Amino acid sequence: MPQPIDFYFDFISPYAYLGSIGIERIAARHGRTVDWRPMLLGISVLKVMGLKAVPDTPLKGAYSDRDAVRSARFLGIPYSDAAKTQFAPLPSARAFTWLKDQDADLAKRFAQRIFAAHWGEGRDMGSAEAVADEAEALGVPRAELLAAIETDAVKQRLRAHVDASIAKGVFGAPTFIVDGEMFWGADRLDQVERWIETGGW
Amino acid sequence: MPQPIDFYFDFISPYAYLGSIGIERIAARHGRTVDWRPMLLGISVLKVMGLKAVPDTPLKGAYSDRDAVRSARFLGIPYSDAAKTQFAPLPSARAFTWLKDQDADLAKRFAQRIFAAHWGEGRDMGSAEAVADEAEALGVPRAELLAAIETDAVKQRLRAHVDASIAKGVFGAPTFIVDGEMFWGADRLDQVERWIETGGW
Repeated sequence: MPQPIDFYFDFISPYAYLGSIGIERIAARHGRTVDWRPMLLGISVLKVMGLKAVPDTPLKGAYSDRDAVRSARFLGIPYSDAAKTQFAPLPSARAFTWLKDQDADLAKRFAQRIFAAHWGEGRDMGSAEAVADEAEALGVPRAELLAAIETDAVKQRLRAHVDASIAKGVFGAPTFIVDGEMFWGADRLDQVERWIETGGW
Repeated sequence: MPQPIDFYFDFISPYAYLGSIGIERIAARHGRTVDWRPMLLGISVLKVMGLKAVPDTPLKGAYSDRDAVRSARFLGIPYSDAAKTQFAPLPSARAFTWLKDQDADLAKRFAQRIFAAHWGEGRDMGSAEAVADEAEALGVPRAELLAAIETDAVKQRLRAHVDASIAKGVFGAPTFIVDGEMFWGADRLDQVERWIETGGW
């Protein structure tokens, strides 16, 4: 039984959205599973690496807006011009963390729904209420979710996930770890698939 | 007659090396030419964007070393484990600038030779002497080159190229501009080729 492919993501990243679709397609083609793992670029990029967020970076910020939508069209993935590139990822990241401890498959479907709503449909997923709406559509009691994401236990659990990702060397989203090999970027999915097929080079 | 594809590069970037080979293959397949344009990441990334150089960035630096060699093998492009990721790009960038004003095709062959020597063979191209050796092999008088790259005229000419690249929004290497559309990264060559084929999407 092969190990799951580890998929590190932050809802704030349009490339993580693109990568989330690509990695599930690759996993399905090769009979593999995907372990969705939350990380926070606001901690890895800003605090550990000492860089700026992409949208705040001169030249690169403007380019990335264009590149993300162009890449989505190239890949045939829905992408809304209205998608806000700056929004709070904590409510959704905490909700994912809380859900995953109960039901990893439900948490994945929740994450896919948040990605699709924010990036595919352009609906702002930056508020706890918006996040609770999406979870509720999957049968998650909204009051319970809204209470959970305000608890120290859930906040600390997410922070532990983020610390663990950094300890693994994960610095960007999406990051994929396949049979111990790390790949960063939705644009490395061709190499990820080749790695699965060949065992590496 | 279609416009040339603009290819912005810095010898310091292993991805620019990989991209330099890919873009010439694509251009050849589609009857296009490539206009090689020098830029300096030390100015665009460090001074304009306010970021660190990749090798100096925690987590990302170590990953990039691995990613560059893995990408080269994936693409079937020679890449030496001995290639130094930190070296002075100014002697080669200035020599290219000086050569291009005389003979753009010779300058391209010189650049390809520098890329291949440094990244493909692992020979350090950070010194004026090493650069002059490579130019000499193409018939360029070495004393003339060594004198030229120390002149203010050549230094200012390169700086003008760099300023022009930044004015165009170019912030990384390799960058390709195809029929007015900008693509950053050797990993965007699939999109570059599709753009040439389709006129955009």
